[in-house]
Amino acid sequence: MHLPLLYYLDLFGVAVFAISGALTASEKKLDLYGVVIISIVTAIGGGTLRDLLLDRHPIFWFEDPVLLIVIITASIATIIYTRFHHPPLRVLLIADAFGLGLFAISGAQIAEAQNLSPLIVVVMAAITGTAGGLTRDILCNEIPMILKKDIYATAAISGAAMYLILKALGMNGVLAGVTGSAFVFAVRIAAITFRLHQPESKLPS
Amino acid sequence: MHLPLLYYLDLFGVAVFAISGALTASEKKLDLYGVVIISIVTAIGGGTLRDLLLDRHPIFWFEDPVLLIVIITASIATIIYTRFHHPPLRVLLIADAFGLGLFAISGAQIAEAQNLSPLIVVVMAAITGTAGGLTRDILCNEIPMILKKDIYATAAISGAAMYLILKALGMNGVLAGVTGSAFVFAVRIAAITFRLHQPESKLPS
Amino acid sequence: MHLPLLYYLDLFGVAVFAISGALTASEKKLDLYGVVIISIVTAIGGGTLRDLLLDRHPIFWFEDPVLLIVIITASIATIIYTRFHHPPLRVLLIADAFGLGLFAISGAQIAEAQNLSPLIVVVMAAITGTAGGLTRDILCNEIPMILKKDIYATAAISGAAMYLILKALGMNGVLAGVTGSAFVFAVRIAAITFRLHQPESKLPS
Repeated sequence: MHLPLLYYLDLFGVAVFAISGALTASEKKLDLYGVVIISIVTAIGGGTLRDLLLDRHPIFWFEDPVLLIVIITASIATIIYTRFHHPPLRVLLIADAFGLGLFAISGAQIAEAQNLSPLIVVVMAAITGTAGGLTRDILCNEIPMILKKDIYATAAISGAAMYLILKALGMNGVLAGVTGSAFVFAVRIAAITFRLHQPESKLPS
Repeated sequence: MHLPLLYYLDLFGVAVFAISGALTASEKKLDLYGVVIISIVTAIGGGTLRDLLLDRHPIFWFEDPVLLIVIITASIATIIYTRFHHPPLRVLLIADAFGLGLFAISGAQIAEAQNLSPLIVVVMAAITGTAGGLTRDILCNEIPMILKKDIYATAAISGAAMYLILKALGMNGVLAGVTGSAFVFAVRIAAITFRLHQPESKLPS
Repeated sequence: MHLPLLYYLDLFGVAVFAISGALTASEKKLDLYGVVIISIVTAIGGGTLRDLLLDRHPIFWFEDPVLLIVIITASIATIIYTRFHHPPLRVLLIADAFGLGLFAISGAQIAEAQNLSPLIVVVMAAITGTAGGLTRDILCNEIPMILKKDIYATAAISGAAMYLILKALGMNGVLAGVTGSAFVFAVRIAAITFRLHQPESKLPS
């Protein structure tokens, strides 16, 4: 089972993703229900797709209603807060980077437990970390942000790859996981701080 | 197995959803095939996602080709009809409310059979009733209607909650199911009649 | 297992679909990662949805990393190529028709192995051949091309139906498969050559 600490980190991760969902949805003139549903999809979409692809049942949020309650609460709190204040976007970006690190490595570990090849493990890390935000953007009728110009999935992929490499080099699994998560976090923060983008791919005109 | 009456109600429900899919698609200059595929997705999308999440196999429409045949027939009939007449939108909204009531409660009952917690049962009711229409709107490149300003998923959620509460209070399952479905229907009809909307969530400007 | 020839045809099919994904994505100012992810989704999306719906685990691309490597390579090669040259669209349309024929019939055969009814077998052929391209267009925020005005899914459906009919008439399975694939290919090439479209469905104005 979860270590208590890991469990609270997980709750923190879904809450942060729920807030990011609520903020994106708020700009789209959705109704309250729409905002909450987008928060839910953002927070659990990646892990749900991972569980479906890996045939893990029950899906991770079925057994623990606390997850949904945390998400819904975070979403409603965001809606109320943003009626009176501008959201602290910088803080949220940092929290979101933290959540991405957590989810990417937990996705990698779950895929690893099924003895999948390293390439698939890395793909599962990316799916776990980013599919929720991708679905959020599709629902909001935008080209998904992560496809456009942000080092987001790239961060998840590099952190998961580092995690696998460290383990292959003999590092203890927990330590490798923490290092991998921290690397995802660091890449994201660097990307935000220095406004790094990946080069665009363009057809010749 | 299905009671015969329930089975015919189910067929009625998918037909109504198929028509709503065909009408939405018709406004988008899709070709005939596109309209039919959107009808299919609208009618079976919610139940399919529910079955995937709950690991129920075979998916409900695999075993009974009659469902697909009814959907395709309803879709083609709608295309032909709307070439000559304006569709009776009011009648369709009422029929759609009826379908939503059916699907929400049947989704709740299927989730209940897996001993899931009440919160998840209600979520499954909402998914069964609304995910098809949501996918329809994504395919038509619109922000899903149910996220914007209609008491639609809210109706499914309240009806499913009422169903669970009535059963917890000792009411017979069939009666609770009928009452829950009727409540979904009534909420939708009230929302349509009085043009009720949920408040928008907005960022301060 | 796969005959070697079939295996190489499969690799060819995913490569072609990956290139079509990369070309669509290139017009959308996505970053490099975004282009690669859209290539992957285009190439494996249809087969993945088929495997999920049919409860086939592990998903087909989990066991064979070569598939992903071919896709990623094809995608990156496309990005580099299109920086210097215009893509040979005519050649690609022909290759894509070939891939569609392969995927549609292989989807039909996989569904057949589960003793599903002919209608569902045909639906699975269509899903295997077209769901990847559909998801590509959703991610790129366009109304999916196949819903609009191209004989694409229609080609997959007619080829799968022909395959089933030929087998029912007693033709050898391999021969029926090749004929069905060839028919999909021929319908697509005819549609491209003569610019055939299906009639639009329109509401009276």
